[in-house]
This record gives sequence, C-alpha cells and structure tokens, in this order.
Amino acid sequence: VTKIGVLTSGGDSPGMNAAVRAVVRTGNYHGLEVYGIMRGYSGMIEDDIFQMDSRSVANIIQRGGTILKTARSKDFFEPEGRAKAYENLKKRGINGLVIIGGDGSFRGAQKFSNEFDIPCIGLPGTIDKDIAGSDFTIGFDTAVNTAVEAIDKIRDTADAHDRLFIVEVMGRDAGYIALHSGIATGAENILIPETKTDIEELISSLTEKEKRKKLVNLIVVAEGDEYGGANEVAEIIKKRLPNADTRVCILGHIQRGGSPTCLDRLIASRMGYHAVECLLNGRFNVMVGILNNKMNYIPLDNAIKAKQKISEDWLKIVKILAS
Amino acid sequence: VTKIGVLTSGGDSPGMNAAVRAVVRTGNYHGLEVYGIMRGYSGMIEDDIFQMDSRSVANIIQRGGTILKTARSKDFFEPEGRAKAYENLKKRGINGLVIIGGDGSFRGAQKFSNEFDIPCIGLPGTIDKDIAGSDFTIGFDTAVNTAVEAIDKIRDTADAHDRLFIVEVMGRDAGYIALHSGIATGAENILIPETKTDIEELISSLTEKEKRKKLVNLIVVAEGDEYGGANEVAEIIKKRLPNADTRVCILGHIQRGGSPTCLDRLIASRMGYHAVECLLNGRFNVMVGILNNKMNYIPLDNAIKAKQKISEDWLKIVKILAS
Amino acid sequence: VTKIGVLTSGGDSPGMNAAVRAVVRTGNYHGLEVYGIMRGYSGMIEDDIFQMDSRSVANIIQRGGTILKTARSKDFFEPEGRAKAYENLKKRGINGLVIIGGDGSFRGAQKFSNEFDIPCIGLPGTIDKDIAGSDFTIGFDTAVNTAVEAIDKIRDTADAHDRLFIVEVMGRDAGYIALHSGIATGAENILIPETKTDIEELISSLTEKEKRKKLVNLIVVAEGDEYGGANEVAEIIKKRLPNADTRVCILGHIQRGGSPTCLDRLIASRMGYHAVECLLNGRFNVMVGILNNKMNYIPLDNAIKAKQKISEDWLKIVKILAS
Amino acid sequence: VTKIGVLTSGGDSPGMNAAVRAVVRTGNYHGLEVYGIMRGYSGMIEDDIFQMDSRSVANIIQRGGTILKTARSKDFFEPEGRAKAYENLKKRGINGLVIIGGDGSFRGAQKFSNEFDIPCIGLPGTIDKDIAGSDFTIGFDTAVNTAVEAIDKIRDTADAHDRLFIVEVMGRDAGYIALHSGIATGAENILIPETKTDIEELISSLTEKEKRKKLVNLIVVAEGDEYGGANEVAEIIKKRLPNADTRVCILGHIQRGGSPTCLDRLIASRMGYHAVECLLNGRFNVMVGILNNKMNYIPLDNAIKAKQKISEDWLKIVKILAS
Repeated sequence: VTKIGVLTSGGDSPGMNAAVRAVVRTGNYHGLEVYGIMRGYSGMIEDDIFQMDSRSVANIIQRGGTILKTARSKDFFEPEGRAKAYENLKKRGINGLVIIGGDGSFRGAQKFSNEFDIPCIGLPGTIDKDIAGSDFTIGFDTAVNTAVEAIDKIRDTADAHDRLFIVEVMGRDAGYIALHSGIATGAENILIPETKTDIEELISSLTEKEKRKKLVNLIVVAEGDEYGGANEVAEIIKKRLPNADTRVCILGHIQRGGSPTCLDRLIASRMGYHAVECLLNGRFNVMVGILNNKMNYIPLDNAIKAKQKISEDWLKIVKILAS
Repeated sequence: VTKIGVLTSGGDSPGMNAAVRAVVRTGNYHGLEVYGIMRGYSGMIEDDIFQMDSRSVANIIQRGGTILKTARSKDFFEPEGRAKAYENLKKRGINGLVIIGGDGSFRGAQKFSNEFDIPCIGLPGTIDKDIAGSDFTIGFDTAVNTAVEAIDKIRDTADAHDRLFIVEVMGRDAGYIALHSGIATGAENILIPETKTDIEELISSLTEKEKRKKLVNLIVVAEGDEYGGANEVAEIIKKRLPNADTRVCILGHIQRGGSPTCLDRLIASRMGYHAVECLLNGRFNVMVGILNNKMNYIPLDNAIKAKQKISEDWLKIVKILAS
Repeated sequence: VTKIGVLTSGGDSPGMNAAVRAVVRTGNYHGLEVYGIMRGYSGMIEDDIFQMDSRSVANIIQRGGTILKTARSKDFFEPEGRAKAYENLKKRGINGLVIIGGDGSFRGAQKFSNEFDIPCIGLPGTIDKDIAGSDFTIGFDTAVNTAVEAIDKIRDTADAHDRLFIVEVMGRDAGYIALHSGIATGAENILIPETKTDIEELISSLTEKEKRKKLVNLIVVAEGDEYGGANEVAEIIKKRLPNADTRVCILGHIQRGGSPTCLDRLIASRMGYHAVECLLNGRFNVMVGILNNKMNYIPLDNAIKAKQKISEDWLKIVKILAS
Repeated sequence: VTKIGVLTSGGDSPGMNAAVRAVVRTGNYHGLEVYGIMRGYSGMIEDDIFQMDSRSVANIIQRGGTILKTARSKDFFEPEGRAKAYENLKKRGINGLVIIGGDGSFRGAQKFSNEFDIPCIGLPGTIDKDIAGSDFTIGFDTAVNTAVEAIDKIRDTADAHDRLFIVEVMGRDAGYIALHSGIATGAENILIPETKTDIEELISSLTEKEKRKKLVNLIVVAEGDEYGGANEVAEIIKKRLPNADTRVCILGHIQRGGSPTCLDRLIASRMGYHAVECLLNGRFNVMVGILNNKMNYIPLDNAIKAKQKISEDWLKIVKILAS
C-alpha cells in the first residue's frame, strides 16, 4: 500500500474531522500519499478526489461536521457505480481506503474490496454507538453531551412551571443516547427500543404522581422506541392525563453537530492512526474499534449494527435514582 | 413602603433569578422585609409566600429558570382572586410589589394596584424582547445565544450533507430571536412576523440556487411568522423543490433555560436594584427599563407588547451578508 | 473607491472574522474588488495581500481569532514602512481601507491616510471596550462571557472549599471586563483602574468576615488595577490574613479566543456593512461605532482610548448585591 | 448496615454531587437512613451531620462542586480526631460510610474502619484519574473537557498572532489531563511526569521550526512535570529563543468546577449505586471502580495513586499527529 484514500460516509458525526486528520498525518509520516474523497462514495464515483497533506488538516480537530462532506450514495450499490469508482482510484494509483462511517458504509466497502482487491479499513463514525466490536463510536460522546446540555436547559423551564416534558433524542435503532442522557439528567422515565415500553405502567405512575403533587416529570424517548417518538407518546399522555401541562421537545439535528468532546477527538485520533497501521501491516478489511481499552479489529463483515442487551443494573439505576 | 413582595410570572426566562436576588438584597440593604411569592399570582392567591434574606438568594445569579417558579394564573383575572391575594399581602403588611414578567403580568399588576393601592413595579422578563420602553428584556440575550449555538451545530451537519435546513425559533409575536440569531449564523433567509413573507420569492431564489449547485441553505423562521412555523414552510418547499434534501428543526424550549449570559445577569441586577429604588422613592406603578443606556420608567399601562419596525438597514444586511 | 483592502490589527478579538466577512460581502455586493491583507500593517508592507470573494469568507462568522491574522507592526511607524505599504496598495489599485483594531491601529491609519490620500475606515475591535464613540467594541461581549463562565467554575470550587479566590481578568487600561464579569458572578469585591483601590478597606472587610464565619470571598481584579494584578493583591492579603485559604487564578488569553457571541457577530456584521457604505458615500477617515442604538461616526483622530467614568449606580450595585 | 453516612473529601471534582445523589437515593430505596456529613472528615469530627432524603438531592446532578463541601482534615490524622468522629456517628447509629475522594481520603477511611469497625466504601473522586483499580475517576472527563475548551480558545489567539503558547494544566503526580487535552487540541508538545522531559530536544525542535517559518506552537505542560510548570519551561525557552513571541497560560482552578459531563454523571451515579450495594452485601472497605466496563472492587488499602505507564502508542500519536 503506497497511496491511500480517505472518506466519510453516511450520517455525519462530530470527530470525523479528527479521524481524517489522523489518517492524513499518519499516512504522510509513513511516506504514503493520501487522497481525500469528497461526499463519501459519491465523490469516488464522480472523481471528486484531491491530494491532502499535513496543512490540509490543520486546525480541523476541533471542528464539527466533516471537511470531506458526506452522503449516502445509491450509485455505489450498483456494479457500474463501483466500477467507475474503482477506475478513479486506479488512475491515481490509490491502493488502500479508509472509510469513516456506519455499518451501511462498511458493507459497501466490503463488497468493493471483494470485487476490486483494494483493501479497506473501517472506522466507526456514528452518534448512535451501536456498532459491534467497539465500546466507542466517533461522535457518540459529543452527541450525548449535547443532549444532556439541552435537557438541562429544558429541566430549568420544566421546574419553573411544574411541567411534564417529553424529550426525543436521536437513536433510530439504539437507545444509548436516550439511556445515557436520561440517567445523566435525572429523567424520571427513559423509553428505548431495547426494552419493552409499558405505556400503561408509565401512565399509572404519572397518575399516581399527579395525585400526590404537581406533576413535574421528564421523559426521554429514543426516536426508535417501539411506541413511537415523543409526539406519539405525548398524544397518549395528553389523552389520559388531560390536566397535566405536557410539552414536547425534539432535539433533532443539533445532536449531530458541534465541536467534538475530548473523548471523541481522542478515539478518532487513535482509530485514524491505527487504520493506517493496519493498511501498512496487511491487516485488511477490518473495522478498527476499541474494546476494553485495547484496539480491536473485526472483519468488516461483522461490523454490523449491534442490538446490545442493556444491563439490568442500568435499568435499576434509572428507576432508583429518579425516585 | 416597608415590606415588599417579589414574584416571577408568565413564561420563565433566564436571568429572573438574578433579578430576584437584586430585589432581595437591595431591599434588605434598605431595611425592608422582602417576601418571595411562589408561582406568580397563583402563590399570592394560595398564600404561598415566605420571607427571604440575603442567604435565600446566594448562588442563584448563575441559575436558569426561577427559584420562585412561575405560572399563568386564571384566578387573578377574577375580582375574587385579586381580593384573596390582597388579603394574603395585607396580613403580612406587604405594601409594595415587584413583578418580573411580560406584558400580561403587568396588566394584572396595574389592575391590582388600581384596586388595592399596593404600588407595583414591573421588570421586563421575557425572551421575546418585545416590550415597549426598554432596549433589553431579561432573558433575550441568553435565548438568542442558545439559538445561535444550536444553529451553529445544525450548520455543521447541513454543510456536511449539502442540505436545506429550516429552523424554527421562539417568538410568537416578535421576530427578534429569529432576526438576531439568523444574522449571527449567516442564515440565507429569515422569516419574521414583522415583515411580509414572500414565499414565492423564497421558492424562486431556492430554485435558482438549486440550478447552479447543491442546495445548502439555512432558513430561520420565527414561530409567529404569518406563514406558519418551520413545518408549514417545509411542506411548501418540499412540494415545490422535491429534490432538495430538506430538514426541519424546531429548537423549542431549550431557548428558555440555561445559565444566563453576562448581559442578562447585569440588566437583571440593575433592574432589580432600581425596582426597589422606585418603591422607596414613590415612583409607583412603572416598568423599569433601560433605554439608550439609561434607566427608563414608563407607566405599567404603557408597557405593552411593542411591534417595532425592523430597520431597513438590518433587512439589507440579512440579504447582502448571506449572499 | 473601487478596490478596497481589509485588515485586522493589534490584539485579536472574537468577532473580527464576522467583520471581515461583512466587509467582503458588502464590497462585492456593490461591485468593489476586495483584498485581504495579512497580519495587519505587516502584510501591507510585506505585500501579503490577496483578493477575496464571497466564498473566502464562508463559514467564518462563528470562528474566533482572525483568518487575516494580526500583528503589531513596528515598521509602519516609520515613513519608509508606510511608503512601501502604499506602493503595494497602489500597484493593485486599492483606493480604500478598512482597519479592524484598536486605537493604536487607528492612529496608524490616520497618519497613513494623511500622507497618501487613501481613505481609511476604522472598526473598533478590542475586548477591552475602551474606545470613545461606541457603546460596543467587537469582542467585548464574548470576552466577558468567557470570563463569567470561568469564574462560575471557580465559584464552584471556592464554595466547596470555603476559599478566598482572587481572579485576574484582562483590561490593562479599562476595568469593564472586571466590572461586568464581577457583577455577573456576584463577586464580593471588584478592583478596577477607574476607581481608587482602598486596600485597607478591603483587608478590614475580609477580616470582619473571617471573624464571623468561614471566609468565602471572590475578588475580581483587572490586570491594570493601580494596585497591581491578582498576584500582588494576593501577596498583601496572605500577609495580613495568613489563615485564609487564598488562591489566585489568572484567566489570561482564554478571554481572547472562542466562538463569538450573538451580539459580537451582530455588531461586527453591522459595522462591516457600514464601513463599506462609508467608503462609498465619501465619509472618510472615521471610526464606525454604535451609540444609543444608532450608527455613530467619529474622526479616526478622536477614536482614542476612553477612560470613562464608571457610574455611581454601578458601584453601589456591586456593594449591595454582593452583601 | 442500617444507617449510612456520605461525605466528600480532599479536592473537589465535578460529579461528586451526582455520586452523593446516587448514594442517598439508593440508600433510601433500600430503607436505609442516609446522613450527609459536611466538609469531609472535618464535619464528622465537628458533628456537622444531617439526615438527607430524596428531595435533599433534587436538581444537583448537574451542579459542579459538592453540596456537602469538602476539606482536608488534619485532626482526622490524630487518634483523638477519629475517636470524636466515631462518637458522632455512633450517637446517630450510623454503621456504614461512603467516602468520595482521593487516595488520601481512602487511607483515612481504612484506618478509621480498622479502629472502629465501621465499614467504609470509597468512590474515586479526583480530576487527576490516577487511582489504581479504575479506568475512570469522577471529575476527570469534565476537567479534561474544560481544559480542551480553554486550549481551543488559546489556539485561536495563538494562530492569529503566530505565537508560542505554553499552557499549564492540573496534574501534580499524573499527566493524564495534559496528555488527553494535548492530543485533543493538537498540541505540538506535551510534557508530563510519566515521561522524561528532554528540554534540549524540545528547544532544538523549536529552533528548527523557527528557522523554517513563523513559530506557532502549543506546548501543554502538566503542573507536576519534573521540569516544572509552564513558567519554568517558558523561562528556558525565552532565554534560548529570545525572538519567539512566547506566552504562558496557567488554566488553574477552572478545571475543578463546572457542570459535569455526561460521562462523569454516569459513572458517579453507577458508583454511588454500587457503593450502597456493597454495604448491603457485606463487601466492606473497598473502593468501587470501573475496569473494562465492569464494576471492580479493590481493598481500600490498594486504592493508591497509580503511576501508570503511558502506552507507547499514545506517545507516538502525539508526535505524528502534531507534525
């Protein structure tokens, strides 16, 4: 491997820039030429590729978003798209790729690598923290802290008015953002896809509370909860507790942006460094993760969305600490 | 005036605690007894009143929300409610009131004062900055900075994906939060109630842009725009530009909470100090404002929502700077 | 005026980028060519000048520092330096300048304009807020909010330990940062150059407090206080109150950086816009300020450091509210 | 165990309140009486102890500092002090203790427990992250993020002026804050106690850089580096590179305060919960840590300051990524 490309793909997440920076500088350090590919696989197909050096990545470690932009490319699902992408790499002599993205991006990489024998390394870049093989994903820590800061603010106004707030956080398939931000803000209830949401129990606990005193209550819902998001939950609650002063807040895309936290910058830097090491050492087509404080490498094929079992302890903690 | 009460009323806003602190400490300094009244006029009617001293307000200047809580009281609209409230003040000898809230709260105060001869001083506490007689309202600067930080984050992800974002900020009757946060984040379009929203012009400028390149565009909408909020605007845009990658984000209640900015703490402190001075100097039934850097006192009756004319300069700046 | 240059000079301040953006885009809008000059007058002498367009200033409104970099140029004090600078402008046809900086930078501009008949417009860019003719300077609001956030944190640990903290903030000639951040954080004492610091009174009030209870006390000192900075004050206090748990914290350069607040972005945008308007309308060699909510133009010669009298009210508020 | 006491001891750290909250609520949930002890062992000796319930810890999870205050007690080193402390616990029937603090506090607890047979549980509360037996300590993540935000701001002004900045962060015995914040901010050099600081190599790399171009360079120093703090390092550099524009910034106590990050709130909550579980399950005189994502319990005697070997990888990353 002598020339490598780096791209960001799928939903953006804070820390992607730190990973790009690490790939470029580690590559340069080892004498590799490094190319940035714009907008994920789209730029690979459309030949939007440019050489990068140390200065191209100066002063980006602290920036949210991704300087390489990102996209979800439909064309890359098609053999013609991948063939075209390969031509664009080949004509530059690029013979290694680092893909920063989620499980969908990894599947594309694996397929591409199978077809064209260009080794690919995946780095888990997603705010949802639901990739097998890594305790951390780039962006999760920032997203969850953004959610916590927002919910802290909502708590101020909820307390001032004795209100019931239902806050929706991101997480279509995974409840990690909801679980972590909910515990950290002292949410009374946390609804996540990993556990069965017992709406009747929720209603009866709220009713109980309302009888005793003003109903101040914070419910954090993952957008992917099987019961629906905050609006769906609010509708039911309003019907059953018509006197409660109920409000909905959907945090939305603010969770994707912002300057990355120290942790996200660190893991992104480490993963970017090790991605290049993998390419140099012939450890091909793996995702670079961190497990139990050690670097962990799993085949790209296995780096899928992982529905992890939420520990019983955590659920107990939610219940006890908000009481 | 020897004993005074202080309350927060209507929607909460960051800086209310700083104002309460200033009222309590200035009152104590001048030898007055100061009473906190919980939940606005509700606590006055329900006799939820307690004496405060310097320590009651220690360490609250930096807190969002209001330690006195707030509410909108229907009962205070009724003569019986006000009579009951008066009894509760009278039995404690309270003969002066400071009301921190918006124009609705001031109207209640004026009526109460007319009926029961308890002088009232109003402090403008609202994030909307739409009260006549003051350049500043307690909470606006914090709210607008919260909006700016949130939109900066959205901009990260909008840029990463080349997306069109429609962000809704608070402001049912006034577009100040939208106008200030929109200019400060370089929004391409800002829709506010004070100006006619020409949706056709908006659509055609977006169409023009889309023809030339990827459509990255940030539209900030005040919730009270005559065309509706972000969802309504998005619906039209999606119909007319079906290929644009359009997203909506409604910032919602995060704009009400959070630790107040330096400016909000300062004006709240100054206003609270002068509220007590007014009561001591017989300047009764006024709202304390700040106009052109000087304290400004207007009769409570005149402290109404002010639909101010937005300067032509500002609108030009929006147009030119986002180009 | 058909071609203009823009530069940032002296100490950097948050919001300078927003001002540069406004100058470039307003200039372009009016058909002017706009040139960025690097490192203040140094780049003008060293011919480090490049043409800018709308895209050069994309995505900088939210960035701290200045993309044009800044410096204090000794050579510009010499006639040869200015002559060389003029040559570099002349060869490009630049016939107007916008200088974003402090009073020293304005004096240089005035001299340059007298000698070479290139009209100059000054924008007040300094965190110290001590320029005559404007209620606002670009960067002050951000700096003071940074100071407030830092002091809030120090307050946490001061309270946890019952400590006496002496915090030094910036302000060599002016106490505005100290005064505003001190009031906003409930500092018990604020030492500024504008008022005589009575160290004996300070010591005796601390002694008094120490007798009554644990000594938790926050003193905010402007670096330019006539008694010296935090270290000097601490030395005296430690000598006279040896049992107090006294700590010093010098906030330093963190006050210069960071993403600008909404207010700083707004005033920088407005000032930048009006700077170009001035050049177009023949209003030459003025500083653009904002006074009582209106644009205000004063001759560059008069835009000097202003030792303003601190209002009696404010000093009273400091004393009463911290009690 | 039926009645337990909880205290915070030693230097304060963000997240201590979250731990106190978890101890109180988990204790209450299991039917225990929970007592708060003020100012660490001092309050135990001075009998400053009060019963706590769920409401005593409402709305504190997001607060910096510690509502129980903290101190370093000399008297507790003496047998008489500990005897007095024991009397105060005994008269209330307190038969279990949770101590949130550092290794010094744990040694005190172990001694106390040996003498008086009151089981003690330690929770690692220190921003320095240098306690054996836990990957996390309460407060580290917040402190390091505060440092990162501050250094980001300094980077803005360093870049604007082409300056060499030497930033000192906390860490008397451990370089974790320096190492993590240094990598995360792209510091060119990081000086920590765990590695030998080769000042000659540093000087020669700076000299090299200065020859090639303007010297913009960020050095992060742990206060406990064997070469001294930022001031000592600056002195040497200024002597050897007199033309460099060198500045020092000592972050100081801002690193101790502030609202805790999501991670610190989470680990504090989990540790607090498990502290009570330990007391209930007869797992006495241990420190509750988290190792490789699992709860980890080590005897208090072993919970000492751990000088960990910094991984070679990390040091390589520092060198390569800043290049």
